[in-house]
Amino acid sequence: MGEEIRYKQVILSNYAKTSVKESDLSLRTSKIHLKIPCGCDGAVLVKNLYLSIDPFILALMKNQELDLPSFTLDSVSLVLPIYGFGVSKVLDSSHPNFKTGELVWGFTSWEEYSLIKDPDQLFKIQDKDLPLSYFIGILGMPGMTAYVGFFKFCSPKKGETVYVSAASGAVGQLVGQFAKIAGCYVVGSAGNKEKVDLLKNKFRFDEAFNYKEEQDYNAALKRYFPDGIDIYFDNVGGKMLEAVLNSMRLNGRVALCGMISQYNSLEQPEGVHNLINALVKRVRMEGFFTSDHYHLYPKFLEIVVPLIKEEKITYVEDIAEGIESAPGALFGLYSGRNVGKLLVVVARE
Amino acid sequence: MGEEIRYKQVILSNYAKTSVKESDLSLRTSKIHLKIPCGCDGAVLVKNLYLSIDPFILALMKNQELDLPSFTLDSVSLVLPIYGFGVSKVLDSSHPNFKTGELVWGFTSWEEYSLIKDPDQLFKIQDKDLPLSYFIGILGMPGMTAYVGFFKFCSPKKGETVYVSAASGAVGQLVGQFAKIAGCYVVGSAGNKEKVDLLKNKFRFDEAFNYKEEQDYNAALKRYFPDGIDIYFDNVGGKMLEAVLNSMRLNGRVALCGMISQYNSLEQPEGVHNLINALVKRVRMEGFFTSDHYHLYPKFLEIVVPLIKEEKITYVEDIAEGIESAPGALFGLYSGRNVGKLLVVVARE
Repeated sequence: MGEEIRYKQVILSNYAKTSVKESDLSLRTSKIHLKIPCGCDGAVLVKNLYLSIDPFILALMKNQELDLPSFTLDSVSLVLPIYGFGVSKVLDSSHPNFKTGELVWGFTSWEEYSLIKDPDQLFKIQDKDLPLSYFIGILGMPGMTAYVGFFKFCSPKKGETVYVSAASGAVGQLVGQFAKIAGCYVVGSAGNKEKVDLLKNKFRFDEAFNYKEEQDYNAALKRYFPDGIDIYFDNVGGKMLEAVLNSMRLNGRVALCGMISQYNSLEQPEGVHNLINALVKRVRMEGFFTSDHYHLYPKFLEIVVPLIKEEKITYVEDIAEGIESAPGALFGLYSGRNVGKLLVVVARE
Repeated sequence: MGEEIRYKQVILSNYAKTSVKESDLSLRTSKIHLKIPCGCDGAVLVKNLYLSIDPFILALMKNQELDLPSFTLDSVSLVLPIYGFGVSKVLDSSHPNFKTGELVWGFTSWEEYSLIKDPDQLFKIQDKDLPLSYFIGILGMPGMTAYVGFFKFCSPKKGETVYVSAASGAVGQLVGQFAKIAGCYVVGSAGNKEKVDLLKNKFRFDEAFNYKEEQDYNAALKRYFPDGIDIYFDNVGGKMLEAVLNSMRLNGRVALCGMISQYNSLEQPEGVHNLINALVKRVRMEGFFTSDHYHLYPKFLEIVVPLIKEEKITYVEDIAEGIESAPGALFGLYSGRNVGKLLVVVARE
């Protein structure tokens, strides 16, 4: 059965009813043999290298319905660690398509080693020229989210105006750069000066503003979009969505990608009181999940990998060290202290 | 200049700030020569036969932005009557495409005779086998609204579940019948027993309910749609839209056609607090105006006229007599006392 070693896991102590907090997660040490156990045909045993810190994990901590399995609570006999996207190295495999030493990305667990029983959901990493962490960022789910959300759901046309909220995040920074490539005028908002500078100077947004400094979102949007907004890539929902609807142009499009402002709100989330604008202005609002669109992944790589290699798009990561730092990093999403795509290095190889 | 005769008009006394009321409209008697005046090349002079009572007129009385010209107030030197859709007979024409005696439908004014300066927006009525009033109903804007809204914006598939609010109205009764023709399960809501009976017995909805008898819209929708709603044809907005979002199925569609619950509400309209459902369930919500889609009108007639003649669809009108009854009929939309498409007969020929 191979050597048994001690390893760390992150588990959920209880489901949050109203707001989630860092102390709902705890660290545990368990033991594992670094071999596939008997009776686990078709599984792979991986060493997790990078774990992705994504807002949907906060939603799962509230047990919000997301078409994803619930996290297992620390109150049943066999507690599983929480899960998310990661980049991992195959240590052992009983699946014909995976070999020891191969690198993969996909759903894994928040722990140093994972036995993955459904490896068919994993993507193999073929291109070794790029940082491995990119496969949970620009070349993984967030990158696909920006690509599918912007090109498929926003139907951009040259010269249109685009607004991106949470614009310096894992998805937003790419949406802005895709919008520039599509010939659009793009404005992003973020929560501090450092991020706003990044949007303007590194990601080449036409304009950017700190939403925390705006008393009146309507006035801010009028200032940056005097003629209105054609496309809104919504990462936050709530009051910002309401303000955007007031500024939408005829036949505008809103991609509902995330509503982080609502994930942790009280029982009664913020209301949007002006949906009549969506009617009068013939706006299309559409929610999407990236997971419905992975058949586009090969095409996405064909487009995005060359853009990265030619330095036509850039990607900023905010990297925390060690699995112990994962819960703190996750709650950094709320405080907004991350700049760029948040991830945790569990091991570098 | 022809004989000068006295005729009646309906004018707006003032714009409503919060709620509109019947007394904001008044009746006036003016004089007109039944000939096109000098300097009005390209105009037609018509006798109005039927006027359509539509919810958008209430919105215009509040001066809500609808991409339509505002009504002229009874405080400027030259007060124009309010306008809307009508069926009219050409009495005189200085436009090469229109001849005396022809019947037309399109925008006209709420008065017995109108000088229409932009007759290019009018549609000629070719088919004389059908009731003339149908051209402001099933064969006019409301019919096109049901057709475009349902087939283009709701993308129905056989076996899907469809919910229609304000279902006995000018548009809703057709949406339900189109849904049955498309092989869908369709439930409608309306505001009294007579309408509910009409939905079930005359328009062949699978089910119908009186929303005024429901304490909890969520519970009502769960009862009629235990497995959820694929398509919502929204004529009302507000709290019903909120409840529907809780019951939407994955990849559902919401056509935002009207929000009559919001047209006359206080300054702060009802909020929709659960748009996160649109994200999680990947729902497409889209507002539309029928006026953007009149290029489909010939195709629409090709499809719908035979359906009427073969009695495969039916249409119920609620007809008021005389232009004097128009303001009262309009406010009947709010009290919900109309059953079917509301219209006013100004003259029968």
